[in-house]
Amino acid sequence: MNRHFDEELGELKERLLYMASLVESMINYSIKSLVERKEDLIKEVYNHEDEVNKIQVEIDDKCLKLIALHQPTATDLRFITSAMKINAELERMGDQAENIADASVKLLKEPPLKPLIDTPKMADIVKKMVKDSLDCFVKKDIELAKRVLATDDEVDDLKDQIFRELLTYMLADPKNISRALELILISRHLERIGDHATNIAEDVIFLVAGKDVRHHINELEEKK
Amino acid sequence: MNRHFDEELGELKERLLYMASLVESMINYSIKSLVERKEDLIKEVYNHEDEVNKIQVEIDDKCLKLIALHQPTATDLRFITSAMKINAELERMGDQAENIADASVKLLKEPPLKPLIDTPKMADIVKKMVKDSLDCFVKKDIELAKRVLATDDEVDDLKDQIFRELLTYMLADPKNISRALELILISRHLERIGDHATNIAEDVIFLVAGKDVRHHINELEEKK
Repeated sequence: MNRHFDEELGELKERLLYMASLVESMINYSIKSLVERKEDLIKEVYNHEDEVNKIQVEIDDKCLKLIALHQPTATDLRFITSAMKINAELERMGDQAENIADASVKLLKEPPLKPLIDTPKMADIVKKMVKDSLDCFVKKDIELAKRVLATDDEVDDLKDQIFRELLTYMLADPKNISRALELILISRHLERIGDHATNIAEDVIFLVAGKDVRHHINELEEKK
Repeated sequence: MNRHFDEELGELKERLLYMASLVESMINYSIKSLVERKEDLIKEVYNHEDEVNKIQVEIDDKCLKLIALHQPTATDLRFITSAMKINAELERMGDQAENIADASVKLLKEPPLKPLIDTPKMADIVKKMVKDSLDCFVKKDIELAKRVLATDDEVDDLKDQIFRELLTYMLADPKNISRALELILISRHLERIGDHATNIAEDVIFLVAGKDVRHHINELEEKK
């Protein structure tokens, strides 16, 4: 019975990792469509989204069944409820990648606004956050979780910088405004993906250290 | 024992409703600070945020304890895991209200850009969505939940309209750009609050009808 339960927890981890890999691909395709100006890559984002949605429902069901059938102890219970939260975070990252794809559709209809600024760089950092947040969950690696939290500040700085640069473009020529706006919104979508990864990392710290850092990150920093 | 458990579920509902009322106040204060150009109202938003964060942790703990101690049946278990999800949605709504307050801080430093456009109207609709989403959870009212889902389209339309109008202002005079941008971002924050309320309503339909509508809303509409 217990071995069976452990196997099921293992499967749960696998499914979450698979879902995370799909979300990474979605971010990848959405930004690549923009950089390479290829509309067919946008379709890949929407195809992945369907798959992500299906797996979200499947994982949620699995978690509920695991709790109901095995009535797990405090630690396992917390692991499973964390898996449910992470599942929801991943699905929302997918939604944000879809928002980027929607913006890309609009941008590809117009001539390119020369600078994509630091958008691809920001996307790379955010993709790594997604990967790391899942890795720290699976490996219960609290140091990696802290690094994810630290990276979030980097992402925020990049977002502010992108905002300032695009604002300059808008002020320089009104013809840039609508395209620059879309790029600003894309940077906000990337920021939100980073936020979701941060939520996962906070959950992992809670799970491993039994310490809820969601609303006192600074306290954690001080104690390092 | 069972009577005790029912009482605890009742308390859980009360706390969620209280948290929702705090979030509604946060939205209220953040928009009111903008409309009435009163900086002291912004402080109220930040004060409420602290309270919301505290209650989120408290509710999460309560849910985990309820599952661990009472090992509830499928229906009660689903109710409690829904409460955990709703708890997270509410906290994120609070984050969005805080984002609006941050934007308001910036906007109050400059002379007013005449039209707040439909921002206050959008805020009113979104506040009602928050209230209704919690009411449909507490009353297990599936019809009210469907109305929340329908209102989300209204919110999206308003957001698009606000975007178009502000774009016109930006194109007309570059001096409007940075303020118009902040107002566009505020409409996005309101949109996201509406999305969170929609997530709750979808959860309620899943809870009551045992039907997962998260990714096939249209199917539900067709069957009405």
